[in-house]
Amino acid sequence: MIETGLTNLFALRHPIVLAPMAGVSGGHLAAAVSNAGGLGLVGGGYGDPAWLRKEMFRAKEATQQPWGVGLITWAVDLGVIELVLRYQPDAVMLSFGDPRPYGAIIKAAGCRLICQVQDLDEARLAQEAGADIIVAQGTEAGGHGGGRATLPLVPAVVDAVTPTPVLAAGGIADGRGLAAALALGAHGALIGTRFYASTEALGRQRAKQRIVAARGHETLRTRVFDIVRGYGWPQGYYGRALHNEFVTRWGGREEELIEALPIERTAYHEAMGDGNLDTTVVWAGEAVDLIHSVEDAATLVARISLDAEARLGLCARLVR
Amino acid sequence: MIETGLTNLFALRHPIVLAPMAGVSGGHLAAAVSNAGGLGLVGGGYGDPAWLRKEMFRAKEATQQPWGVGLITWAVDLGVIELVLRYQPDAVMLSFGDPRPYGAIIKAAGCRLICQVQDLDEARLAQEAGADIIVAQGTEAGGHGGGRATLPLVPAVVDAVTPTPVLAAGGIADGRGLAAALALGAHGALIGTRFYASTEALGRQRAKQRIVAARGHETLRTRVFDIVRGYGWPQGYYGRALHNEFVTRWGGREEELIEALPIERTAYHEAMGDGNLDTTVVWAGEAVDLIHSVEDAATLVARISLDAEARLGLCARLVR
Repeated sequence: MIETGLTNLFALRHPIVLAPMAGVSGGHLAAAVSNAGGLGLVGGGYGDPAWLRKEMFRAKEATQQPWGVGLITWAVDLGVIELVLRYQPDAVMLSFGDPRPYGAIIKAAGCRLICQVQDLDEARLAQEAGADIIVAQGTEAGGHGGGRATLPLVPAVVDAVTPTPVLAAGGIADGRGLAAALALGAHGALIGTRFYASTEALGRQRAKQRIVAARGHETLRTRVFDIVRGYGWPQGYYGRALHNEFVTRWGGREEELIEALPIERTAYHEAMGDGNLDTTVVWAGEAVDLIHSVEDAATLVARISLDAEARLGLCARLVR
Repeated sequence: MIETGLTNLFALRHPIVLAPMAGVSGGHLAAAVSNAGGLGLVGGGYGDPAWLRKEMFRAKEATQQPWGVGLITWAVDLGVIELVLRYQPDAVMLSFGDPRPYGAIIKAAGCRLICQVQDLDEARLAQEAGADIIVAQGTEAGGHGGGRATLPLVPAVVDAVTPTPVLAAGGIADGRGLAAALALGAHGALIGTRFYASTEALGRQRAKQRIVAARGHETLRTRVFDIVRGYGWPQGYYGRALHNEFVTRWGGREEELIEALPIERTAYHEAMGDGNLDTTVVWAGEAVDLIHSVEDAATLVARISLDAEARLGLCARLVR
């Protein structure tokens, strides 16, 4: 066991949080991570009520342990927050946008507020919102994020927000990454892509296999998938995805893609129906280099934590 | 003391290597780092023989400890390598380009070969070159680099090249970063920007003060300084620098800058003479957030190492 401010706050056995990957971190995966001793977060994404109801119900049904829900702040409204709180999650995580309008209502419900930030200014907004935990997310993360890298960002956020516990996110897929996060002063790690390649994750088997096969340099940050899907992400946020034919065609030609939307959006939706991953997006972070097979979430939580423990012991013995 | 494959190879007291920052890591700084128990590398950069002779002489004169020289691989030739070897450095570090043509001659001189890499393909080239140490450099580093981030790159390189010892570079400026590097499986850290803001570093006092004042998000990767200075960097390498007026004017307008070179290069050289940092470059990494004053190199080496030791002890005690 590794004991930190995170594990104490939620009575976890391991300082590992499942990233609330939209459409991937369903209730089944969240519950599996929570049952394994981490903290599972349902990936509420843009706040679709029907999806949220289904997956929150699944999570509640499948675990007695603490669990939570993550949402894209700029995409949701008070109604979505209230819907989520009715399911009594132990934590709500807000990412990408100003969390202050929702901090009080979340905390008044007896729920912990986790805020994910990409720079120091956002870290201060998170503190103002009353965040119980602040996640410092680096640009190597899969899915949406900012421009700063995890290794220098985490200690800078720690210095800015102490005593609020900080988690590291972005680039972490094994025990070495978790141990490094703790060495940087974080109280644990928020892990996404590694859990995408788990049996319990939603998403197609072939997407998981692509993650297993991919190398870190085959991921890139792009806006083309947001454009074609019609999501109006605020400036500064890009999504890190696996390179595919769609990126080859439209990367760097975003203005042309916008003009071609009437055709391209239809084609994209068809490709989604077909499960065509040469066109549709597979979000994934640079840590795909460290992912070699699809495994159960419980196996992953146990191994990452045990490896981190061993690594920390090993490092302490380097000191003479 | 922290004992690793790096400290054993060179009989160092601390697993800290001074990044060979061109024009900044002179012989005086390299010797100071070596005398403090780390490994100081003179920043030979593009291989100017007169500068190299002067600074290598200074290093040799000022330390009895192991020291070395770093060079930009694509920019140098056999003559530069031979010049360097005549000064009998303990290590030559090659970055940015194929090190294989020079590996044998460096090692035949009884000198250790350090190769800095930015991705896994380069790591394999480094092994073929016979590297004694491989530095995995993340994109958050100051100066030139690739596109991968340190946290996920280091363990991937470790997995690819073990048993060759790996160092972490990019984003490391304090004991937490060094401890994290060791947790990732590295045998030490190569540190640049933190030593730029040292009393012994070459470079103007005002440049050092800018580094102290800057925030991580005020650094960016750009080609504009390479273009105006006339350095033909191969594709894929950008330099991370502090944002300034020159970047505001030319960033994203690289083609126009090339057309304007007859005027702009003259203006840039004048600005260099004037020490005008609104025009000329200050290379710096994202870890500037962690740099709060200009200090002696010996103070930095001691504090980074002591803090890393303390951090590793602290982390080991988190394990129950």
